[in-house]
Amino acid sequence: MTVAGPTPIPTRRGRPGYDQQSVLAVAVAAFNRHGYEATSMGMLAEELGISKSAIYHHVPSKGDLLRLALDHALGGLESVLEDARASAGPADERLEFVLRGTIAVLTERLPFVTLLLRLRGNTDVERDALDRRRTFDRTVAGLVDAARHEGSIRGDIDPRTTTRLIFGTINSIVEWYRPGGPLSADKLADDVIVMVFDGLHRR
Amino acid sequence: MTVAGPTPIPTRRGRPGYDQQSVLAVAVAAFNRHGYEATSMGMLAEELGISKSAIYHHVPSKGDLLRLALDHALGGLESVLEDARASAGPADERLEFVLRGTIAVLTERLPFVTLLLRLRGNTDVERDALDRRRTFDRTVAGLVDAARHEGSIRGDIDPRTTTRLIFGTINSIVEWYRPGGPLSADKLADDVIVMVFDGLHRR
Repeated sequence: MTVAGPTPIPTRRGRPGYDQQSVLAVAVAAFNRHGYEATSMGMLAEELGISKSAIYHHVPSKGDLLRLALDHALGGLESVLEDARASAGPADERLEFVLRGTIAVLTERLPFVTLLLRLRGNTDVERDALDRRRTFDRTVAGLVDAARHEGSIRGDIDPRTTTRLIFGTINSIVEWYRPGGPLSADKLADDVIVMVFDGLHRR
Repeated sequence: MTVAGPTPIPTRRGRPGYDQQSVLAVAVAAFNRHGYEATSMGMLAEELGISKSAIYHHVPSKGDLLRLALDHALGGLESVLEDARASAGPADERLEFVLRGTIAVLTERLPFVTLLLRLRGNTDVERDALDRRRTFDRTVAGLVDAARHEGSIRGDIDPRTTTRLIFGTINSIVEWYRPGGPLSADKLADDVIVMVFDGLHRR
């Protein structure tokens, strides 16, 4: 499943060889490797082989790089919820659609979602992103609750526990999944859906 | 389920009011809050309200605090594998026993396992701990493989994927579980086992 992101990263005309998007990709990799606080614009300039002032030509500040990166992750996730299949039909099918979409965004925008999941919320940009993430999580929790009320998923687990375990399963994918490897993103999504909804026991 | 840890933390006679174990508990909380690298012995002394030399009375170095803490987490996990129920009987029942035991250790030694799971492996102590963790993970992967060969768990998911998704589900518990809250550790273990083996769909 391919998710059409509603939030293309706005690009500015930059120096030859780089545009804002490729600067952003290098920045996100560095944030994930060293941590956001520990990464300076000077380090990014060095990795890109350009001057610090050339980076400022692409983006006004380090905080803007973070904001653009988190918006790319969150925009992808939010677009899943905006799809008609997330709001029409039985709740368990809507939940399955949203979980597949979440896995698709996670594998397609892996470093961006990794950055989002490691946030601690020390700045306004981070707090805003965590708010958007919580809104997304709450919508998924609502689907779990609705599926439980409809009777399509089991009633003996607290829906908050169910939601946390589902997110635990899915979010951990960023720790080991490698795009382009033997496991395709679609097969991974199938595997997660099968384990979570049908369980590992053969019947 | 209560796991009898084979690795009690060795205690030395310390200053009145503190023993090595309570110094260790404060250290682990600080490592989890600030990161191991960023935590100094001076910071620990300040939190404990004792002098730096009084800490050295309890433990020779910051690295020893880390080693003792990681050994407490790993010793708990390894003791699960040493139980007879981990090596006798059908593989799916052994796997269920080991997963329940893992969840029990995780909830009983929560800050210690949290520290273990956040390790990046920058020092010998950390690399040794990661080696022990990998050995534990491999044993669980072997049980998944055995259960698949016995035909008790489904054959359409690669056992490496299954193992990673199971650990993703279980390890994420450290991010949200609060001992003493409304969800008991036993009920949590039941919930995880039910979701992973039987799935969320009501049948």
